[in-house]
Formats: sequence, structure tokens, C-alpha cells
Amino acid sequence: MGTRLSDSRQYAHLWGTGELVEIFGERARLASWVTILGALARAQARLGIIPGDAAQAISTQLDADKLDLDRITEQTMLTSHSTLGVIRELQRQLPESAREFVYYGATVQDLTDTWFALVMREVGSIVWRDLRAVEDALLGLAHRHRDTVMLGRTHGQPGAPITFGYKAAGWSDEVRRHVQRMGEARRRLLVGQLAGAVGTLGFFGVDGLRLRREFCAELDLGEPGISWLTTRDRIAEFGTLLAMICTTLARFGDEVYELARPEIGELREPLSPNAVGSITMPHKHNPEASEHLDTLARLVRANAAVLIEGMAGSHERDGRAWKAEWIALPEVCELTAVALQTALRLAGGLRVDSQSMSANLARMQAQVSSEQLLAGLSARVGKHRAQQLLQDLSMSDPGGDLAARMVDAGLASATEIDTWTGRPATGAAASMVDRLVTASRTARAEEPERWCP
Amino acid sequence: MGTRLSDSRQYAHLWGTGELVEIFGERARLASWVTILGALARAQARLGIIPGDAAQAISTQLDADKLDLDRITEQTMLTSHSTLGVIRELQRQLPESAREFVYYGATVQDLTDTWFALVMREVGSIVWRDLRAVEDALLGLAHRHRDTVMLGRTHGQPGAPITFGYKAAGWSDEVRRHVQRMGEARRRLLVGQLAGAVGTLGFFGVDGLRLRREFCAELDLGEPGISWLTTRDRIAEFGTLLAMICTTLARFGDEVYELARPEIGELREPLSPNAVGSITMPHKHNPEASEHLDTLARLVRANAAVLIEGMAGSHERDGRAWKAEWIALPEVCELTAVALQTALRLAGGLRVDSQSMSANLARMQAQVSSEQLLAGLSARVGKHRAQQLLQDLSMSDPGGDLAARMVDAGLASATEIDTWTGRPATGAAASMVDRLVTASRTARAEEPERWCP
Amino acid sequence: MGTRLSDSRQYAHLWGTGELVEIFGERARLASWVTILGALARAQARLGIIPGDAAQAISTQLDADKLDLDRITEQTMLTSHSTLGVIRELQRQLPESAREFVYYGATVQDLTDTWFALVMREVGSIVWRDLRAVEDALLGLAHRHRDTVMLGRTHGQPGAPITFGYKAAGWSDEVRRHVQRMGEARRRLLVGQLAGAVGTLGFFGVDGLRLRREFCAELDLGEPGISWLTTRDRIAEFGTLLAMICTTLARFGDEVYELARPEIGELREPLSPNAVGSITMPHKHNPEASEHLDTLARLVRANAAVLIEGMAGSHERDGRAWKAEWIALPEVCELTAVALQTALRLAGGLRVDSQSMSANLARMQAQVSSEQLLAGLSARVGKHRAQQLLQDLSMSDPGGDLAARMVDAGLASATEIDTWTGRPATGAAASMVDRLVTASRTARAEEPERWCP
Amino acid sequence: MGTRLSDSRQYAHLWGTGELVEIFGERARLASWVTILGALARAQARLGIIPGDAAQAISTQLDADKLDLDRITEQTMLTSHSTLGVIRELQRQLPESAREFVYYGATVQDLTDTWFALVMREVGSIVWRDLRAVEDALLGLAHRHRDTVMLGRTHGQPGAPITFGYKAAGWSDEVRRHVQRMGEARRRLLVGQLAGAVGTLGFFGVDGLRLRREFCAELDLGEPGISWLTTRDRIAEFGTLLAMICTTLARFGDEVYELARPEIGELREPLSPNAVGSITMPHKHNPEASEHLDTLARLVRANAAVLIEGMAGSHERDGRAWKAEWIALPEVCELTAVALQTALRLAGGLRVDSQSMSANLARMQAQVSSEQLLAGLSARVGKHRAQQLLQDLSMSDPGGDLAARMVDAGLASATEIDTWTGRPATGAAASMVDRLVTASRTARAEEPERWCP
Repeated sequence: MGTRLSDSRQYAHLWGTGELVEIFGERARLASWVTILGALARAQARLGIIPGDAAQAISTQLDADKLDLDRITEQTMLTSHSTLGVIRELQRQLPESAREFVYYGATVQDLTDTWFALVMREVGSIVWRDLRAVEDALLGLAHRHRDTVMLGRTHGQPGAPITFGYKAAGWSDEVRRHVQRMGEARRRLLVGQLAGAVGTLGFFGVDGLRLRREFCAELDLGEPGISWLTTRDRIAEFGTLLAMICTTLARFGDEVYELARPEIGELREPLSPNAVGSITMPHKHNPEASEHLDTLARLVRANAAVLIEGMAGSHERDGRAWKAEWIALPEVCELTAVALQTALRLAGGLRVDSQSMSANLARMQAQVSSEQLLAGLSARVGKHRAQQLLQDLSMSDPGGDLAARMVDAGLASATEIDTWTGRPATGAAASMVDRLVTASRTARAEEPERWCP
Repeated sequence: MGTRLSDSRQYAHLWGTGELVEIFGERARLASWVTILGALARAQARLGIIPGDAAQAISTQLDADKLDLDRITEQTMLTSHSTLGVIRELQRQLPESAREFVYYGATVQDLTDTWFALVMREVGSIVWRDLRAVEDALLGLAHRHRDTVMLGRTHGQPGAPITFGYKAAGWSDEVRRHVQRMGEARRRLLVGQLAGAVGTLGFFGVDGLRLRREFCAELDLGEPGISWLTTRDRIAEFGTLLAMICTTLARFGDEVYELARPEIGELREPLSPNAVGSITMPHKHNPEASEHLDTLARLVRANAAVLIEGMAGSHERDGRAWKAEWIALPEVCELTAVALQTALRLAGGLRVDSQSMSANLARMQAQVSSEQLLAGLSARVGKHRAQQLLQDLSMSDPGGDLAARMVDAGLASATEIDTWTGRPATGAAASMVDRLVTASRTARAEEPERWCP
Repeated sequence: MGTRLSDSRQYAHLWGTGELVEIFGERARLASWVTILGALARAQARLGIIPGDAAQAISTQLDADKLDLDRITEQTMLTSHSTLGVIRELQRQLPESAREFVYYGATVQDLTDTWFALVMREVGSIVWRDLRAVEDALLGLAHRHRDTVMLGRTHGQPGAPITFGYKAAGWSDEVRRHVQRMGEARRRLLVGQLAGAVGTLGFFGVDGLRLRREFCAELDLGEPGISWLTTRDRIAEFGTLLAMICTTLARFGDEVYELARPEIGELREPLSPNAVGSITMPHKHNPEASEHLDTLARLVRANAAVLIEGMAGSHERDGRAWKAEWIALPEVCELTAVALQTALRLAGGLRVDSQSMSANLARMQAQVSSEQLLAGLSARVGKHRAQQLLQDLSMSDPGGDLAARMVDAGLASATEIDTWTGRPATGAAASMVDRLVTASRTARAEEPERWCP
Repeated sequence: MGTRLSDSRQYAHLWGTGELVEIFGERARLASWVTILGALARAQARLGIIPGDAAQAISTQLDADKLDLDRITEQTMLTSHSTLGVIRELQRQLPESAREFVYYGATVQDLTDTWFALVMREVGSIVWRDLRAVEDALLGLAHRHRDTVMLGRTHGQPGAPITFGYKAAGWSDEVRRHVQRMGEARRRLLVGQLAGAVGTLGFFGVDGLRLRREFCAELDLGEPGISWLTTRDRIAEFGTLLAMICTTLARFGDEVYELARPEIGELREPLSPNAVGSITMPHKHNPEASEHLDTLARLVRANAAVLIEGMAGSHERDGRAWKAEWIALPEVCELTAVALQTALRLAGGLRVDSQSMSANLARMQAQVSSEQLLAGLSARVGKHRAQQLLQDLSMSDPGGDLAARMVDAGLASATEIDTWTGRPATGAAASMVDRLVTASRTARAEEPERWCP
């Protein structure tokens, strides 16, 4: 039974998804290892390094589901070796003639790094899919609310009007660049590892590089060029990209959290009918999904930082940096997967209260037309002089009706005020939305549905 | 089955200890929660808030081992509430008359924060015990090797002689201050939480503070003063202290790692007869424990940083920061526990090769007496002039025999050289060791064996 | 001219204070170094290591203000040595007979680490003073607003009533523990460094430890026991403590930022009459101090993390970790000093709008009495049953008048509702404030005004 | 005078380069701001927003070198506004008729974010140039030492032979991917900011987007699509990329540091004739450049983490996250520039001692042929059985002559041993080098010399 809340029965759903269990669950991992060892055996048989029937047996007779985890664990602890326990258990599933040929000449990192590549492929595909789905939902919000006018806020204070579509477009814009980054990174990231003891494939003599090519091809992975035993920029890039994605989602969540305050009341999380907000305050409906996005991003950033730090490994293998990846890489993957699912539900079901938006704006109208008043007055007295005049008026009556004060002070007539504040106050908001939506939809149409075709 | 390697059968032993499973395992956690709810019920009965026989039932009839985890999980997911699933399941273990009185008026954080306090008490006790055991082993090394002369190294280069005891004393000195910090922090950290909805215990009216006092007393925890729903400095302090402890242990591990290089050969990890260093290089004996100390420290630092960041929570409860603790606090605890056990084995079985130490020193003798030669020559020509003269000699023959060059250059006679380099070159090393050992042993004798008496 | 905005003329005031310039300014640093070298010389003269008149000259004739920075820089770059440029320039200020005796037998770290100790003493004293001043202001707020009722908020949503004094007490409580931590840490932190080449004081032969004692005494610093060339827990502890302090201040700032939203309007920053909030929106009054507290905390945490990481240094000196302290330690000091001054102004001038607090509470009254309604109904039907009933009522009319719905549903009479919600809803808030204020004032009275007496 | 060591006269050269002073120095920054304001004025004049002769004056008469920094600072402090002090000072350089038209309708972030874009372009160009120069040096090392056989080390222990060229190729491989990342990121990063108050360009009414296009074109920057006031992924990406680059350089430096230990003696830093390693140990030649690479990477990582954290900004502007960039972004730029220069000197002058490499290998020969012995014996008895047999032999005589023990134990004849260990032990090392060098040189030939054409 798990000792981490993230692996507890009760709370695992908050820190991982079902799909990720299919990747990182212990049996799933072992199944992936079996796949890798099968690929290695077939590649080796093709080059005559091991007998064909051994490869055949290794490819077909190993069954991760039937491995005895107790024995594996016991041997792992006894030998202090990361994979020898597994090897011994795998050998028991093989006929005598094949036993010596499983995991032949490869080292621990060949297995675990290639597994990392497969994991990044699977997780990357999920991220690609869900990130684009989040984008789709955000584009929908941007489009639908292109003209839903609301308060823009700076420094937590009312600024000038924007539209909610413009706000959603800002989220979507950021997501698009993450999609782009994912697209660019794919080919760099998805390479196999067959390095042997120190990276030179010395065990295999002259066959080394041909074997590696065959091995990677079997798994549909790219070839790495130089062995990457201590060349870990790919892992760091992947982790950091996920950290950036999660932080974008946290920005989205934090915004919902703030705008869902009843004093503001502009956004609300989708209501789930059975959700209990509080056992001491029955009226509570908390923005739990929004909050969780922020929580997840904190943890992902922390773990991603470990992956960058781990790039500075020593010599031809460095357990200090490498083993930290065993914890940090799966962690960023699992938490990102939940974050994306959470964001997807939130974006898909977000309740936008355009009436509250209007009402809030109206309530602040006297203040937030100040940019327009400034523009109007600037044309007459100069921009900086106008700013100073309005600043002085505003200071003498903070929160008051600036336009009325201007009339009182003889700075403008009521008619002028009407003219200045009469044009749409949201400037280029709608145009920016249109451009973003068009550009993003074009990009979406041109890119593959799946990260790995 | 766990999806984190830290919770896998195969590798859990690298990322946690048996004792910690007894704290953080899912059943153990639930048992701890049952204890807390029993304490709450008894305190409430004493003040007449709930009936005595309900408290009696809650105190005696709840059994964490028999809770149906599937049902808890299902209800947790259905209600999106962290503890309602547990409550409903607990109610099923109670007679009708007590069901309404379990978890009476308390909120989620009352339970989980008080659990954190209990966890910190248990983990803190283990840390105190193991940290002092590590210190004991290091003091032993310092004392035994008080006069084991070896190369001191600065910037990775031979400097001047030290003793291995001096080096070990430096580790021990740092550990001592951590013991001191743990001692000081204890009273601050170990407080219960009974806050209710927003921290004011409003549910309990005038009884609130008396109830909290009784509740904390039941659990032998201190009273917190102000409710700490968003006052998280205690959690941050505990996590950061563990991060500092682990980094000290990493320093120890890194030093062993470096000095165990065969080119240096001064230290070696204890040999475990069944350990397999490599499946591709049968000769390998890797400093795995040393490496692991560094790995653990990286992860603990990253998670501790999340705890400090979490201090900036909003209003009277902030799920964003708080829920991150659910992952980060147990993580730092588990990893620190392994780090201490690992360090203890390493320190206890460390193989010190004093012959290699002597040989390395002898090999570098011509260089590392330079501080003594400088001191000698300084007395005659002035310190900075001497430094310049020797610097020039050294630059003209890097790595050469500085003393011989001095004689050649007429800077000193062979007799003078002998005099200058004849006195013990390790300066105050042994005296520092003696002082440290004495001071530490005195401090140890005066402090309690157990963190929580 | 500085290349960092923190050292620009235009913006330096945002990232440092005048007092800190007196500590970290280049001349101030050199003056501090001169002080240290004077202390060393006097200690050495006392033990007969250098002539008395040389010590006299070194103590009295060195003048940091007259050092030629260009020459120092040129020599520093030429020799790639951190202090040789300074030494040569210092020698020029001395009579021939004293030149060889300045900086006699000490190493770079002896100077810079002892400087760090002096810096920590000066900065620690400022932190102690300002932290206690902040506490004083917060205690004042807590006391004055003991009964100023306002909404408590959890998850950004209205919860139940608290008082503003209770909120302020929570900040103050956290600050008190930081004061306590500072008090405990002082003796640990303030030790001199005289280590020599590898920490053993080999240059000084048998005089080493006596010299170190005299040297530390001259500077009123403690003795370190073991040389701390790579034993950096003190630096890490100091930096981390400052990071925790800044994060507490950020919590305070973030709260002001949120409650100063005009939609909430409960707190406001003190108005500075000349402040210009925006050059495009003349009406803006931004919570700039509040924001800045958060900004500073981010940067301090990042730099403090470097200091913990740096604890894992190698051998007897490790430039990799050590030199990072040269940047990170001053940075945390400077930013913390600004944070404290900023917090002090904010706490001292904070505008508390108790009418807005009342109004907001009244507006949410129907919801935030739910804890009391639950308590009342619990007494009749049981707590969990009551929670379920109220939860159902609330779900069917989110944000509605729960009490009215209860009467409609026959769960309570109007009279009962009045009784239940009639008692003070803020529970133990005022009592907690009283206790905190009393306890803190007692602690304050018993502790010294100055960190270093 | 600077209060940060990074801005001190004495040490600034360690934390910045001359080129970076030209970017981040206070006058340079102001000059860049003047350039931006000139571009804005010209764009505005073209659209008839301001008079042509005002734009002409703004474009030609502003002189950053003559701005009065004292007055700017005084006004900045008085108004608490980031740029109003500058505006007022700029106005003084303009004729009356132009004064109102400088900085017309733009906000602080329009100026500072566009400045960030210019900074990223300049710094990115330097990084591109120096990173490729480092690559060139590393490719040279890889090529020249393609067959320079040396010990491969794993876990700090001798593993099996590699070539130094293979090691260098590993560094170069990582650098190449950074070049690739820089290339991909360029178009994303280099966009101007003209957003106005809340991002919608409301001040400019219908002209907003056309004005932005003209403005960006004037500066040869891309258009941003959506205003990026709180959309900070670009800044985070740039900072993180620099952090990864620096960590790669730290890996290189750390490797030199370790292999420059005299006990190993395989690499040495280039000797600078005037460098003084130590003032207490005249013989010292420290790997200072190597160390510094590690130091710089720590600081850059810490600051880059602040930039990712800052992506979660609130609403349409958030000073908390944004102002932290003011410190963190210049910091990562400056430190990366030094790191690249340092790495370039180190790679260019690296002294490779192939004799030591051979000698070390020969000394460990009995051990490091174990992979070959395993391969040979595997062919006879099976791989895992062979591993077990050799493991047992090795355990019974750690560090002994494994081949001799095999003969003794009857596992192989001396002839077989000779055959097995006779073939080149470095496997595919040379082939990997060839491929990397060819691929990298091809890529280099196909990509532009300059980041921004």
C-alpha cells in the first residue's frame, strides 16, 4: 500500500489519472520493460548476436503480469542492483535455452532510459491531446465572449474595459505556444538508449551501432547519436515544458479563483451536484478545480527544477543525478496529466456571468473610463499635462466620478465627455480575439491530431 | 499498486523505511485519524458537547484496519470532499447513537493538520534518534582518526595536510547544530489544530478554547495560540530543517564518493557481500550509498522549497498552498528517514585506508608543504614577498619540488627547510577534534535521548 | 555604473535600503575588511606573531575610502585572485615596516567569511529591530480591531465571520516565531573564521587556536569550533530564515492586495499624495507596497535555495558553492531589508475600512451564518444529518438565504434561527487575540531591544 | 556604487561581461528606452496620432547620456512611478512643441517589455555566437581526440575505456541541441509590446493594431498577437533555456574540475601566467574557470525558476510577478554571458594529457577489461552465468587482476583472454564521434552565423 498520498487509494485520483496508471503502475512499467527487452532480443537475433529461437522466446513468453513481485523485490534488495532482481525473475519465465539471452549485454540505464523515452512518448501524446483540447475549449470561450465586456484589472484594481474573450484568448495564446514547443521538441526527445557500460557499446564490438539502430527501429524511437547516460538535456526539457504548461494552467485556475469571489462573481466553476464544499459550512461552493491547478503547478515546478539540476552529471554515469529522475520525471508526468484533465473540465464547464461582468463594469464606470478621458483631454492639452490634471483630480477624490469632476473643473464639457467615452472602450480586444482564433485554428488544422503519428 | 517508484514494491526501500510505512501507510494514516477523532470526542464529552457514551464508542470501536477503502474512495470521489468519505465509513463502525458525534464540528484541516503535528512528532523523533546516531558514528571516526594524516584538498587540488579525524569532526559539528535546531524547534512545531470553519471555533461558541485545550492535551500536543490554517511557518521550518540535514548528509556522501575513487582510494563504502555493482562490468563496486545521499537531498530540497512557498496562503484557508503540503511534507519525511539510515550504515561501516592517505600525502609532499615553507620564508623576507617568491618558483615548475627549488634559488638552506617542514603540518587539527568531541559528548549527555520525552 | 536594476540609480531604492548600502556598498565592504585585518594584526601582535608597531600601523593607517579601486580591480583581474589586489593596495597605505604584516597568514575565506559574520550581525540586528517593529504594528492592529467583525474567507469564498484583529493576530503570531528563531540562531551564526589554507591554521603552528580566539574576541564574534570553510549550515540557516520572514510579509502583502480590491474594499494601502498609479489610467491607486512584498519574497526564496544547495561543498574548500554565496547572501539581506521597511510602512499606515467589512458581511449574512445554523440543527438532528440537510438546501439554491429555506422546510422555527444566529458568531476570535497580544507583549518585554547586546 | 558584488568594481568581471554592460548598464538601458520611444513616435506620426515634427524631435534630440540621473531618481521616488521620472527628464530635452508627445499613450510595460525583447535579441545573439563558438571548440576536441583512449568512469569508479573525443562529443551534442532550441525559440521570443493600460490599446481607439504593427516594424520585432502583459511564457522560456545552457557548461566545468585532480591528471585548465592560486599555499593552481561555471549555473537556475513561477500572473497586469523579472531576467542574461566566455576560454585552452590518460587506463587495466571478459565468457557459458562467475571472482579479490583469476579458476585460457581483450575496447566511441562531428558541422553550415539576420 502506498505511503504517498499520491499513491493512496483515497486520494490517488487527485494526483494522477487512469491513463497514467496504465503507464506508471508497477505492472505497466514491467510490461514496458518486457517490450524493450523483446525489442533488444529481436535486434540482436537479426545481427546474429543471440540465437533466433531465444529472441523468439523472449519476445513472446515473458509476461509482466505473472512476475513474482516479492521475489523481484527480495533479489533487488539482496543484490542492491536495480534490475538484477527483474532479470532473475524473467529468466524463470523462459526456457533454459533462452535464459542467458534476455537483457544481453545491456545495462540498467539502457532499459530505464529507453523506458523514459517510451514514457515521454506516451505522456507527450496525452499532453498533446489534452493541451489541444484545452486550447479548443479556450478558443471557444474566446470566440463566444469576443464582445462580452468586463472590467480589465491591473494590480488587482479596476483598470479599463476588456472583453472576456480577450482574456480567454490570452490563455489560449499561451497554450498555442506550448503546443508549438511540444511539436518542436518531439523529435529531440524520443530517442532510445543502448549504451552499454560506459556508452560506447563495447560489449558488442563492431556490431554496436548497427545493433542500436535495429533496437531503436524496433521501438519506433529515434537514434540518439551520442549515448546520453549523462547527457540529460532531453529529460530536463521535457520536464520544464510540462512545468511551463502547468503554470499556464495555474494562471487560468488562479483567474477563475479570483473572479469567482462572490464580491466579483464573474466566473464560476461548473457545479458538480454531489460536491460537498465544507463539512462545517454547508453553504460553501469552493473553486476546487481552480485551486488544484495552482497546487499541481507548484509541485511540478519543484520537480522540474530537479531535472535541470540533474543535467550536471559526472563522467559516464552519475547515480546522484540519474536516480533523482526516477522520482521527478514520473512525478511531473502524473501531475501534469491531472492538471490537463482538471483544466479541461474547468474550461469546458466554466460558467461566465456576463451580467455580473456588466454590473461590475458599470459600478466602476466613473473610474475605468479614465484612459478614454485621458486620451480625449490629451488631444487638447497634451498627454502628460492631461495626465497630471486628471491625476490631481483623482487624488482629491479617490474613487470619485472623474468625468463629473472634469466638467466641474472646466476641463471638458459634458458633450465632450460623452464623445470621448462614447466610442467602444475595449479598443482592439475583439480584433485581437479574431486574429488569435483564426491563427490558432489554422495552425490546429495544419498540425497532426496525434503527437506521434 | 503505486504509480510512483517510491511506492513500488521493487524500489520502495530506496525511498522510505519500514518505520515510515508505519506512519504514512494508508491504514496507518487512517489509524492516526481515528486516534485524533477519539481524542476530540473525549474532549467534547468532558465539556458536555457530546454524550459520554458516544465518546466512549468513538474512542474504542473505530478500527482503521477494517475500514472499507473502496467505499471511502468512492465517497471521496463522489463528494469531492477530502474526509467525508472517511466520516461515512467511520459512522458504519459506530452504534446508531454515536454516529452523529464522530468528527463533531471539526473541519478537514483540524484533522489533517493535527495529523501533521503527530507525524512531525513521530518523524522528528526518528530524525532525532538517527541524527544523533549518525553523530555518534562520526564522533567515533573523528576520535579514532584524530591523528590519521591525509591530504587536505581545496578546489579539488592538494592543499596542505589535515587529519581524517578533522574532516569527520567537520561533519559531526554540522550534525550537532542540526540536533540543536531540532531541539529548539520541537516546542514550536508540535501543536494541535482545532480551528473549525475559519479558525475561530465558532461552531463551539464559548466552549471553543477550552475544547481546544482539552483536545490538545488528549494528544499530548501543545496549544497553537492562533489557529494555523494559513499560518504555515511550522511546516516550512520542519521541512527546511530536514532539507538542511539531508544536504549535510549529502556532503558526507559526496566526500566518500570522491575519496573512494581508486585514483585516491582513501575511503570506501562498507562492502556488502551480495551487492552487484554492474551487470555489464563485473568488477564494479560503486559508492551507491554515498550517491544516494546526494540524490535524496536534491529531492528533499525541492519539496522543502514548496513548503516555504506555501507560507504565503490567502485568507483563512487556501487550498492552493495547503494541498501541496499533502505531497511535499510526507515526501521530505520519507526521504529524510532513508537518508539518515543510509548515512548511519555508511558512517558505521566506513573503511578508512590510512595507508592510502599517507601514500597520497607523501606523493604530494613536495607541494603541500608550501604553507609551511611560506611560513618559514615569511619570517625572513616578509609574508607577501615570500608568497611572491614561492609563487614564481612554483609557476616556473608547476607540480615540482618547491623545497628543492628554494634551496637552488638560495632562498633557504636544506637545514632550514627541514626545520620549517619538520613540525607537525596539521596545525590545530587534532586540538579542534578534541574540542569538538568533548563539547559534543557533553552536549549529548545533557540532552534527552528522545525528542519527545 | 551598475548593470543590475537593483544597483541602478533609478531603482536601487526598490531593492535595498540606505542602511544596507552602508553594509554592502563597495567602500563599506572594504572598510569592513580593513577592520577585520586590523583585528587580525592586533591579535597577532599580542601573540608575538607580528611586531607591535606593524599591528599599530595596520590598525590605524588603513583607510578604505582612499583605496584606489581601479588599481585593485586591475590587480584582481591580473592575478585572478580575490584579495591579492586589495592586499597590494593596502600595502601602499602602510609604512615599509608594516607592509609584510597585513593579512598575515590568513586566506581569502578568513576575510570574506568573517565579513559574512559581521554582515549577518549587522543585517540580523536590522532584521531583529524591524521585525519587532512590524510585530508592534501588527499587535496594534490586532488589539484595535479585536472586535472589528468581517468576513472570514476560505478558498476565496465567504466562510464565517472573524474579526480583523484575529487576522492581524495571525500575522503577528507568525512574526513572533521568526523573532524567536532569530533569537535562537544568533549565537550559532555569529562566529569568526580563521582557518588558513585548509582549516587547520597550519601556518601558525602551535599558536593557531589561541590566535583564533584573540581574533574573534577582537571582533566580538564567537569562536567557530571547527573551521567552517565547507561547513555552511550557518549561512544556509540565516538565508532560509530571511526567506521565511519575507514569505510571511508576502502573505501580509497578498492579503492587503486582495482585500483592497474595490469590490471588497476592506483594506487600503496608506495613500502617498504624490504617488502616480498609472500614466495611462489617472484614476489608479495600486497596492504597490503589497505587491512588492510578494515580489521580494520570490527573489529571496530563490536565492536562499542556492544557500542550502551550497551546503554540499567538497573537501576543505569548494569554490563552486562558496562563490555562489557571494551573490546570494547579500541579495537575501538587501531584499529582506527592503521588505521589512515596506511592511513596516504598510502595517503602520494600513487603512482599515470597518464599514466595508460590516457591509460585506451583511451582504453575505444569509450564507455565512451556516456554521451557526449547522451547530443549531446538529443539536437536534445530529451533526452529519444536519450537514446533509443543509447541504441539500444550499445546493438547490446556491447563494440563497439558507435560514429562510430552513424555516420553509420545517427544519427550524424563526425563533430558533434567531437564537442560533444570535450569539456572537466570531467564536474565540477575540479571546485568541487577547492571548496573543498578551503573550507577545510579555515576550517582547523580556527580550532585548537589540539582537546583539 | 553598487551594493551587489556583481556590480562592484572589484568583482564585476566575474558576473558580467563588457558586452553585457553595453546592454544593461544604466545609460545603455536609458538609450534603449530612448530608441523605443523614438520608434513609437515615428509610428504614431505616420498614423497621424502625433505631429511629424514632434516625432522628428523625439527621434533625434533625446540623448540618454545627458539625462540627469539624480533628477530621474528623485522623481521616480517622489511619484512611486517606474517611468514618470524618466518622462519628465526626457521632456526637458525636447522643444516645447514635442514635450507632450513623447511616450504618448503607452504604459510602463510597453516600454520595459519591448526593452526586454530588445535585450533578448541582443543577449540571444551573443549566446548564439558564443554557444556556437563553444561548440566549435568542443568539436575540435572531439575530432582531435577521437582516438585518445582514456578511462570511462561510472559512479566515480573506473568502468571501461572510452576516448576523450567521445567525452567531448557528448558535451558538443548537448550544446548542439541548445543551438537548435535557440533557433526555434527566436521567432517566438522577439515580439514587441504595445498594449496600453489593460492590453487592448484602448487609448488609440481604432488605430491600435495598426500602430502596434508600425511600432514593432520600426524596431524590427515581431507582432505579439495578444498583448503579453501577463502572458510571460516567452520570458520563462528564454530564462529556462539559458539555465539549461549554463548547466551544460557546468557539466563541462565539473568534469574538468574532477579530471584535473593531480591524482587523475588527465585534464588541466589553461595556465594563465599571472594567476595566483592561493596566498597561503604558493603551489596551488586551481581550476577556477571550471568551478565558476558551476557557480554561475546555480545562480542562473535559481533565477530562471523565478521566471517560470512568474508565469502565473493575475488579471491584466500583476506587479508581483512582473517586477521579479526586472531582477531575474537581467541576472540570467549577465551570468550566462560570463559562463559562455568562461567556457570558451576553457574549451579553447584545455590541456589534455593523453599520457596520463593512458597511464591511468593501464593502471586499471586488470579491472576495466571486465566488460570484454564478460562478453567473451558470455559466449561460452551464457551472459548471466558469466556475470555471476566474474562477480564472484571479483568479490573475492576486489581490485585484483580479474583475467588472471579467470585463468586460475579454469574459466578461460590465457590465449582466450588475449583474444577477448585484444580487440579495441572503446567500441563505437570513434564512430559516434565521427557521426556527431559530421552531423554538427553540416548543421552549422546550414544555419546562419547570426541569430538575428
